[in-house]
Formats: sequence, structure tokens, C-alpha cells
Amino acid sequence: MAHYTLNKDTIAALSTPQGSGAIAVIRLSGENAISIVEKTTKTKNLKPKQLANRNSHTVHFALLVENDVIIDEVVITLFKAPNSYTGEEIVEIACHGSVFIQQQILQLLFKHGARPAQAGEFTLRAFLNGKMDLSQAEAVADLIASNSSTSHQVAMQHMRGGFSNKIEVLRENLVNFASLIELELDFSEEDVEFANRTDLKKLIHTIQSIIEKLVSSFEVGNVIKNGIPVAIVGKPNAGKSTLLNVLLDDDRAIVSEIPGTTRDTIEDELIIEGVLFRFIDTAGIRTTTDVIEQIGVNKAFEAIKKSAIIIYLFDTHELSRGDLKLEMNLIKEHIGTSQLLIVGNKIDFENLKDLKKEFEDVPSILFISAKEQKNIEELKKALVNLFDTRTLNTTDTIVTNSRHVNSLNKAHEALVKVNEGLSSNIQSDFLALDIRYALEALGEITGQVTNEDLLDNIFSKFCIGK
Amino acid sequence: MAHYTLNKDTIAALSTPQGSGAIAVIRLSGENAISIVEKTTKTKNLKPKQLANRNSHTVHFALLVENDVIIDEVVITLFKAPNSYTGEEIVEIACHGSVFIQQQILQLLFKHGARPAQAGEFTLRAFLNGKMDLSQAEAVADLIASNSSTSHQVAMQHMRGGFSNKIEVLRENLVNFASLIELELDFSEEDVEFANRTDLKKLIHTIQSIIEKLVSSFEVGNVIKNGIPVAIVGKPNAGKSTLLNVLLDDDRAIVSEIPGTTRDTIEDELIIEGVLFRFIDTAGIRTTTDVIEQIGVNKAFEAIKKSAIIIYLFDTHELSRGDLKLEMNLIKEHIGTSQLLIVGNKIDFENLKDLKKEFEDVPSILFISAKEQKNIEELKKALVNLFDTRTLNTTDTIVTNSRHVNSLNKAHEALVKVNEGLSSNIQSDFLALDIRYALEALGEITGQVTNEDLLDNIFSKFCIGK
Repeated sequence: MAHYTLNKDTIAALSTPQGSGAIAVIRLSGENAISIVEKTTKTKNLKPKQLANRNSHTVHFALLVENDVIIDEVVITLFKAPNSYTGEEIVEIACHGSVFIQQQILQLLFKHGARPAQAGEFTLRAFLNGKMDLSQAEAVADLIASNSSTSHQVAMQHMRGGFSNKIEVLRENLVNFASLIELELDFSEEDVEFANRTDLKKLIHTIQSIIEKLVSSFEVGNVIKNGIPVAIVGKPNAGKSTLLNVLLDDDRAIVSEIPGTTRDTIEDELIIEGVLFRFIDTAGIRTTTDVIEQIGVNKAFEAIKKSAIIIYLFDTHELSRGDLKLEMNLIKEHIGTSQLLIVGNKIDFENLKDLKKEFEDVPSILFISAKEQKNIEELKKALVNLFDTRTLNTTDTIVTNSRHVNSLNKAHEALVKVNEGLSSNIQSDFLALDIRYALEALGEITGQVTNEDLLDNIFSKFCIGK
Repeated sequence: MAHYTLNKDTIAALSTPQGSGAIAVIRLSGENAISIVEKTTKTKNLKPKQLANRNSHTVHFALLVENDVIIDEVVITLFKAPNSYTGEEIVEIACHGSVFIQQQILQLLFKHGARPAQAGEFTLRAFLNGKMDLSQAEAVADLIASNSSTSHQVAMQHMRGGFSNKIEVLRENLVNFASLIELELDFSEEDVEFANRTDLKKLIHTIQSIIEKLVSSFEVGNVIKNGIPVAIVGKPNAGKSTLLNVLLDDDRAIVSEIPGTTRDTIEDELIIEGVLFRFIDTAGIRTTTDVIEQIGVNKAFEAIKKSAIIIYLFDTHELSRGDLKLEMNLIKEHIGTSQLLIVGNKIDFENLKDLKKEFEDVPSILFISAKEQKNIEELKKALVNLFDTRTLNTTDTIVTNSRHVNSLNKAHEALVKVNEGLSSNIQSDFLALDIRYALEALGEITGQVTNEDLLDNIFSKFCIGK
């Protein structure tokens, strides 16, 4: 943290989404935030506007004025240091949401000494001023990007310090032992042991198993954040596109109750009961001698490998039980650890009973009609059940960030060395060094240990204005 | 106004632009705004959040909670009736700008008794509660839509009551006379004249000339709001498209200093020194026997008719002074009252002197090279000078709304009848009736006289959340 210089200048940016709307909010943070806004505002009667003497957390009407031209009637909110998001003086200007007005106001603020904020610079300042740790700051970005109830809940838990606290407990226990062992170094002539080696072994073991659990939670955390990859595969004309359209349209109808949300959804993503599924398009799979077509088929196999769930869709009019068995053999080697859902499409309801009998030995098979939108709800339920992240206890800590996984793995490696050292009765100074490595790795997560490149990398991914 | 029932229920909507950003603001207005938000929020320690007992214009941190799940950490601003935009209780919730979170919060508010706000419903309530008159409310929408300094300034002046005051003065003077004349009716047996007919004539004359000036200002007001239509015409290959691209690209480079503005600009619009120009594409103009091509040429002539400014572009290598004269004859009859700017393109700088000499008798001719971006600034200056709306005194009232023009015309017609009545010594009761018509027409502008259809029509064009 000490490596990073905290700029004392005052930054300003649009904090609400780009574009035009009823209102927009422009945010300033820094020593001169209030004085800059005082320079650009007037009272209703065009008298100078006094803001510095007003209380924190209060709201004031004002005219934003440049060269006697009124740019806008605005509402100004004061958050005085240290009781603000960044810990600095913050002024928020709520203006009319015209893009032209937003620009005019920003230009005016820049003219009077504010500087355009970098992406994530408000949150960077919050971190540097100790308002939150690094994993909480990262969770702010995750929260803004969250698009399903699971990704939202995990980000919220991280932002509120759930993950940081867990790491902090591990660190504290380890720091205790590190201090005792480092104390031994001072008395190295006397060959004393302040740190009980049996207790330390126990602790290392506990911490390792917690780290292992956290690392393994990333598999879930990653799909929560980025969506569960689902491949719909099957022969050409099995009805894959129809099914995808039915799934996506169904959902869009629900989502669009609130206008403007559609532009943020991506064609191939679908949220079912708060869980995000990401569908991967595949070409029809069949044995072919056509080289070009084979490329498409190979791509389908690749999609299968990348997916957590595979929907194998077949036309119940085309495929018999025997054919299905052959087909399964064709894709079996590509499935790996993915979950497989076999779905018979284009069902005739008169023959459904016969169909069920024909395929009765196929586990967890489903019959639908994509075209007639029959049994689609059942299919959705099956998808959710196959990867039911909602049953995860929300108090469980789930790692969603690959940077955190890397740090956890580094800590784990160092602890393995500590363990080896303990077994071989290594010297205290080497032991202390490995414990320090572990501490450092854990400290990277919460930001006790950091550097400029890391911070740049994290905050450059933020949106401007946060 | 009495015809329109003010709903007492509490409305809620997203007030910031659609999409994801650092923060978003959700606004509630109505009797239960505070109690609804109290039901959905908790303190940092998950205790019930008390808001009703807090002061107006204060800001409070809170957790938005549903079934013990934290939806977001939010900042709540209270505006208590009548000191709010709508005149009702207003609560603004600033949340993290994820679309998912915005939706969750809105759904939660709807579940606890808020209703989705209609387009413009906050401003409609402000009007119905007497916080602003109708022309001011309309100016709010114009302000949000403003995209140039001129349209912005006119909208701001209207929103701050500049236009309403002018209308109000006319009305008041007229109301005085109307009362006196109506008084005469009570004494109709006695044939008295309380209202001095000479003074009335003078007043009517003054009001008529003010109305005429206002109506004629609409020509300017309309182009300020919608842009000055400019047609670039000329023979095929004169370089029309190149010129348009050079003009537009130049501008885009400036506009894009602030990210996100580009998506609100339209390909064919260009702001030069705060004035909005709207370019109309035309086909090349030449005499042709080809029927299809003639259709294109006719369309170009139509574009000329619709334009306030015509740029006639010609290739200086192709067209001599004599040719230009013939060309001018070809388009002359279509020009009407539009301004004409003759521009010679593809200049060689060695021959510029000769060129200038050749065309010296052509008034206000300009020479450019669109491809080499030479003298483009001069062309822009010429455009601005041809329609210099900025020289308009900003204290001049400019009508930008065709609804207002209609009402002004209706008032004018009624006043013509009053005048005729005065000249022919018509009975007081007919006179009073015509004055009332004029008053009603003026009252439509500010909303003293209104009806549900009119209000629906006006506010349905607003964005939701304002």
C-alpha cells in the first residue's frame, strides 16, 4: 500500500450510466471538491452559493452557472471527509439527464480545477484511504456487473467483507505463530521454542483445508460469475436452434417487464431461477467424410469439453433406442466430467407413453416439443437441478476471482513447505520465512500487500465514475 | 386543471439512464414514499431503519433487504412535501448501478405498495401540485433532449419561467379588461362603459404584435430545437459525400472527448459553435433523360425546398463560370427563401488566385478542398453566420413548441374578432366572449386551461423517471 501514492487532487466523473435520462449524477472527490462546486454554483437569486459551511449528508438546490449563463438547476449532496465513500470530501451533483448538460457541467468542473477521474479511481481512493480492503473493492466491480441473483449474492457477501474476514482470521492465527517463531530467532543461542510445534502443525493443517475448500469453491464461483456453460448438441435438424430460441424468448418476456434491461442481456445467456446459464452454439454432430463439415463437428466436440452441462437433443421421430446408444458412444469420450441431459424432441403426445417405454433404461431422459413449447419448464428445472448453486449456503464463502485463487494457491504452497520444515525440524529462520510467504500471499488478497501494477490492473477494469 | 384527478398513490421509477453504471438512482413520490422505503431498509446492524423522523434534504446510508437477503447498500435522500420536485414526499435511492440490482429494488418497492411511474408522471405531479406551469413542464423535457447550446439555453429560459411570465403579463392585462367589460353586462340597462374602448384597442394592438413576434420566433425556435436543415447539392462527383464526412468526422473527434456521447449523435447532425445543423443527403443534380435518375434529382429538389441553407458544391476542375450560371438557373426556382452558399471544391492552391478572379462576380463564393480538409473551418463559419441564432438576445423569448404556436394563433384570431367588434361597436357580451376565447387560448400554454387528453399527450412524450 505504501508503494502507491495517493493523489490529493480532486477528481470528477459522471457516475450514472452513459446516455440521456431523467437525471444524471456527477461526482467529485478530493480536497477541493466543495470549493470547486462553490465556484460554479449560485443560489436561486444568483448570489454566491455557500456549501463549505453546510453539514455533511445534506442536500442543496443550486444553479450551475458559467459566465452568467445558467447551465442547469441542480441538486447538490455533500459528503464530508471522512464520512464518504472515498474517505475524502465528496460532492454529488444531480443534474437534468441531457448528455449535452452532463458534458457542459463536467467541462466547467475541469475548468475550475477538477481532473477527469480514471476508471475505478473513486474506489481506489476508498481502498487507499482504508474505507475497504482490496477484495471488497474488487467485489464492488463484481456487484455492478452482477446479472443473476447468485452472482449478486456472492458479490454482496464479498463487498460486505465476508471473504476478507475469513482471510483475516487465517492471517491473524498465522501472524501469532510467526511472531513467536521470530522471537525464537532473537534467542537462537538458547535453543528455545516459544511456538508449540504440535499446535502449529494443527493450525497449518486447518488453514490448508480451509484454503483447499476456498480454492475448490472457485469452480462454482466462476460459473456463478460468468454463467454455467451449456452446450446443446445433436444431429442436424434435431431442433437445437428452435430450443434455444424458445428458452431465450421465454426468458426475455419476463425480463422485459422493466424496460431497458434487454440491451444488457446477451443473446445466448439465460437466467433461470436466479442462475445464469451461458449457451454455446454447436453445429450438428454426425459422422461425415466432408472435411469442412468435420471441422464444424470438431468444434461441437470442443464446445462439449468447455461445457458444464450438455443437452443432447434428438428427434424422437428419427432416432431409435439403438441409434441413441450409438450416438452416445460417439460423444462419450468428449464429455469428461460434464453433466449430460438427454432430451427427446418433437414428441407426439399420443405416442409419449410408447416413447417413455422405448427409452425407459436411459437415465434422466426428458421429452419435449420445442416447437410447441411443451415441457420446456421441466427442461429448465432439470438444468437448474443439475447445477443447483442456490442450495449453496449463502454463508459459505465462494471465491469468484482468479487472482484470489492464485494467491490462495501460493499461500498453500508456502504452508506445504512449512509443514515439510516442521517434519524435518528445520531451523526457525527458514520456518519463519515460509510462514511470511504464506502471510504475504494471503495479504495480497485483502491488499495489505500490494503494488502499483496490481492496483492499476484491478481498477482499470472498473467503470469510470465508481 | 380541475378536470384531472391527481393520483394520491406512490410511484417509483428508475430516474437515471437505462443500463449499467457506477450508480443508479430510483425515485419514489407520493404519500407513502417514506413508509415504503422504511419497510424495505435496515440499518448497518440490520435494525429497522427510521426515516420518517429525519429532516428533509438529508442523506442516509441503509441496507436494502428482502427476506433477510441484502440486495444492496444504498444512499437514501429525503425530500419532504412540499419542498420537493413534485411537491409530494420524495425519496431517492442511490444504488450500485447493476441492471440486476435496479430491477430487484424496483420489484421490492412495487411489492411494498409503490406503483411503476408512467412516463413524465413525476413532472405531471409537479404541474398538478402547482410547482410549475405547463410550459415550464414541457421545457423540462426539452432541456433533457437539448443537444446544443442554443436549444439548451432556450429550454432553460422556458423552464425557469421566461416564456410563462411573458404570457402571464398578456393574460393579466387582458383579464383586467375582461372584468370591466363583464361588469358592464351587469349594468347593461344603463349603457355604461367601464372599459375605455380606446385603451382596449391599444392593448389589443400591443398584445397582437407581441403574439405575432412570438409566432414568428417559432421559425427560429424550431430550428434551434430540431436543427437547421442544410442540403448539400451539386453534380455527381462534386465531392458531396466527402464534404459531409469531413464535416461530421471533424466534429465527432471533438465530441468524443467525453466517452459515451457518440451514441446520442445522429450520423447527419453536426453542432458548430453551439448551433445544431441537420444535413440532408441528396443525389447528384444534373439534367437527365433517365427516368429513374430523374426521380433522384427530383428528390434533391425536394430536399432543397425543405432546407434553410443550401450548399451548392461544384468541382472547380469541371465547372466554369458559365456552367455555374446555367446550374444556378437549374436550381433557382427550387430555392425559395432558403439561403444559398456556393462552394467550389477540389481547389488547386496554385490556381486559387485565378479561380477567385474567374468567379469574382459570384456573391459569397467559397473555395475548399474537402479531400485535403482545406478551408473547412471557413465553410463552417459561413454556415454559422448564415443562420446566426446566437446573436439572438437570450432575453428574447423564442417559441419552440408547435402546441404553443397553435394556442398563440388561436388567441390572435380571437383578438382580431375583438378588434372587429370594437370597430363595429358590438355589444359588450360578444366582446367579453371573444376576450375570454383569447384568454383561454393563452391559458392553454401555461396550463390554467387544460384537459386530460392534452396532459396525456404532453407527458407521454417524457422519459420514465422524470
